[in-house]
Amino acid sequence: MPESNPRRGSAALIVALTVLLTVPAVSRAQSLADQYRGPANRLIDAAMADTTAYSRLADMTDSFGNRLSGSPNLEHAIDWILARMKADGLANVHGEPVMVPHWVRGEESAELVQPRAYQLHMLGLGGSVATPPQGITAPVLVVKSFDDLAAHADQAKGKIVIFDSPFPTDVPPMEGYRINVAYRGGAASAAAAVGAVAALIRSVTPHSQQTPHTGSLRYAPGVPKIPSAALSVEDVEMIHRMQDRGNPIVLTLRMQAHTEPDAPSRNIVAELRGSEKPDEVVVLGGHIDSWDVGEGAMDDGGGSFAAWEAVRLMQALGLKPRRTVRVVMWVNEENGGRGGRAYHDAHLAELPRHVAAMESDNGVFRPDGFRFQGSDSALVIAKQIGALLARIGASNVVAGDPEADVEATIHTGVPGFALNVDDSRYFWFHHTAADMMTVIDPDDFRRCIATMAVMAYVLADMPDPLPRVTVGR
Amino acid sequence: MPESNPRRGSAALIVALTVLLTVPAVSRAQSLADQYRGPANRLIDAAMADTTAYSRLADMTDSFGNRLSGSPNLEHAIDWILARMKADGLANVHGEPVMVPHWVRGEESAELVQPRAYQLHMLGLGGSVATPPQGITAPVLVVKSFDDLAAHADQAKGKIVIFDSPFPTDVPPMEGYRINVAYRGGAASAAAAVGAVAALIRSVTPHSQQTPHTGSLRYAPGVPKIPSAALSVEDVEMIHRMQDRGNPIVLTLRMQAHTEPDAPSRNIVAELRGSEKPDEVVVLGGHIDSWDVGEGAMDDGGGSFAAWEAVRLMQALGLKPRRTVRVVMWVNEENGGRGGRAYHDAHLAELPRHVAAMESDNGVFRPDGFRFQGSDSALVIAKQIGALLARIGASNVVAGDPEADVEATIHTGVPGFALNVDDSRYFWFHHTAADMMTVIDPDDFRRCIATMAVMAYVLADMPDPLPRVTVGR
Repeated sequence: MPESNPRRGSAALIVALTVLLTVPAVSRAQSLADQYRGPANRLIDAAMADTTAYSRLADMTDSFGNRLSGSPNLEHAIDWILARMKADGLANVHGEPVMVPHWVRGEESAELVQPRAYQLHMLGLGGSVATPPQGITAPVLVVKSFDDLAAHADQAKGKIVIFDSPFPTDVPPMEGYRINVAYRGGAASAAAAVGAVAALIRSVTPHSQQTPHTGSLRYAPGVPKIPSAALSVEDVEMIHRMQDRGNPIVLTLRMQAHTEPDAPSRNIVAELRGSEKPDEVVVLGGHIDSWDVGEGAMDDGGGSFAAWEAVRLMQALGLKPRRTVRVVMWVNEENGGRGGRAYHDAHLAELPRHVAAMESDNGVFRPDGFRFQGSDSALVIAKQIGALLARIGASNVVAGDPEADVEATIHTGVPGFALNVDDSRYFWFHHTAADMMTVIDPDDFRRCIATMAVMAYVLADMPDPLPRVTVGR
Repeated sequence: MPESNPRRGSAALIVALTVLLTVPAVSRAQSLADQYRGPANRLIDAAMADTTAYSRLADMTDSFGNRLSGSPNLEHAIDWILARMKADGLANVHGEPVMVPHWVRGEESAELVQPRAYQLHMLGLGGSVATPPQGITAPVLVVKSFDDLAAHADQAKGKIVIFDSPFPTDVPPMEGYRINVAYRGGAASAAAAVGAVAALIRSVTPHSQQTPHTGSLRYAPGVPKIPSAALSVEDVEMIHRMQDRGNPIVLTLRMQAHTEPDAPSRNIVAELRGSEKPDEVVVLGGHIDSWDVGEGAMDDGGGSFAAWEAVRLMQALGLKPRRTVRVVMWVNEENGGRGGRAYHDAHLAELPRHVAAMESDNGVFRPDGFRFQGSDSALVIAKQIGALLARIGASNVVAGDPEADVEATIHTGVPGFALNVDDSRYFWFHHTAADMMTVIDPDDFRRCIATMAVMAYVLADMPDPLPRVTVGR
């Protein structure tokens, strides 16, 4: 899922790139559900009986494990997928070159030295620099927030600062994440700015079983780069209590993390070519890279394989949409966003003929429908298509943010779809060693495949393309 | 919580040790609620405003960490508690000697070697023997059950056998545990009996975040002792899928576990002496030992500190029950049960004057009431006392199993109470590194204190003692 998302509304600045429809959107859309009930039900039936996607996702994740940008695992997984897409008979199967950041975790540990010896549950944050080989041993200052750090700035010099900012649970999980992740991104530079020697955060999650969560940090320009890692919720709360009791706290942090030169990688592309308008494209996918812990089954093996299976099922059922349906597995969503940007750049000339861009990157939990970014008139039509998904409870299309890999594409005026799922447990596993196939419920996964397949197929086949952003909006 | 529990019904064999009451139980009990509403409400009010117990539990667990039998941590924690009980002004504060098993985990690891290198999430099982120093590297056989092992017995020789038996989720958690824990106890000897070189189990839990769960194993007589450990659910499922795919699987297990000579430890005892019948005793408590991972905050720091606080609040409120209320923190519940047995043995002569034995060992989650083991007439009275707890939702007293430390005592005819709580998440954390203060909800903890306090106080003060097991039952 996205490291950060610009808010909706930037689309309002975009001049419409396509001609406005002359047929009123609603009446035209109302007929879509009737027109496409047959193929939609065939896709749903096929998806709900599907075992290929789950089996392939398990095989890929078990065989290659996690897939951080720059790792051999990632390239082996990409080769494996490309070979199977070709075997499926999909068209134009290829990798598109992307240079990706290459951060390497190395050995790492964090140990409480005082008031008692205790091995902490930690994961270095992506992009962090290393400690010296002997580690950093320093007294600890626990703060509750950036404001609390500012209030205790005079106590931070030479310390390891720990930010104990809990994940907000009084808002939806995604909103809680967006608030809380500010600490993952900004802790290191905020602490360094007041003289700290390392920065640790409370893992970004509403639930923990001693589970540290990694993810990218951002070093601010002009501030010393200090090592930064996440601790488990339990361990941060314990250290915070120790500070409240007046215990002197000393901790040793050891990290070998380093960044190597950018490495060559690839976006994965495969197509079902359009029968009438092959140059018009519905693109759908997820990201194939993951963090370097767990299997990356949820984030985002599931989303990318759901998109692949959606297209494979269309082909297997003999459905031949008018426009091209293109599955893309973007690379480097997690720590750079280079894949999404590279797709935008490489396909810039054809983006005016992209009729929709869809991504699943909140896990393949029970789907509810889509978040849609685009014009109001297009949203009306998208809702009408969504009605075809009522039988599996996924008909709810609402205005909302896109996923990270299609942001650049959507900002050119392409209507954007993000698969909406029950994300109540997403952040329990996000960027952790527990992002394994066990998280994936096969039935929910099938529903995600069906939801993406029906929406993508109708978008690719309906007589007129979905309107882009309305003029003057 | 108990390693194993004999079923109810053994009580039916016990001859009643006290004279039957001449006043009908129901009419007498109906007056109890009215008679004790005042002190019950004072106890509930005090418990619901309490901060001492949480603060002490956090201080003890953070300061000493986990407390396995034989460890210095345990003895330091016992000393710390005894000192505070004396400072509280409780009577007869002392430790009662118990010799406990002394198992030491040592360094341990499990690594997948084929089909790919992968560090498994493991915890050795309590009581396991070590591997040779270089570890055991062997091919793997995954089985679903003891029956499945029997069906593949000819393939087990020289293998590391992994039992992938899921925690049943179609029954209440405690029942699921009792079914599933058979693998923790019996995997090693079942596998050794067919020539396996080590036995691994799927952790005994309905939910995992790469969380291995330890706990005791039992070596069967006459069968070679082989090393045994638990893997996380996710890792076992992955290896099982690899076997289903026909991948050759090789694993290296390294364990330094060993058992040292029995070590001296103590049951903790403190009292509020009875004002009229000090020789009659209501005993309540939890166990002070824990596994050697996490802090043992849930299992069973919470239960033992709730009992302590219940008695401290009676004293602080100036309540002087007719009979003695005795808090006991039993030792070695987890890997031997020596504390519960030692209490029974040391107090055998006074057990006929024990009017009730109560333990909390399912975590201090939201309490519902009690499981009661005893005569039907006593259950009727216990339900009447329970009615005093309706305002905090803990009035439900039902027939059910006692906890392990009071089993021997209850089997002499003493009525038994087990605090009943919402155990829906208990096994998520049970015997893991995640058994930390974070699991403890302060409000739920207060309700547990109130529930134990009210029941124990009324049992200790009501005019006639609770009837023991009825003659002829």
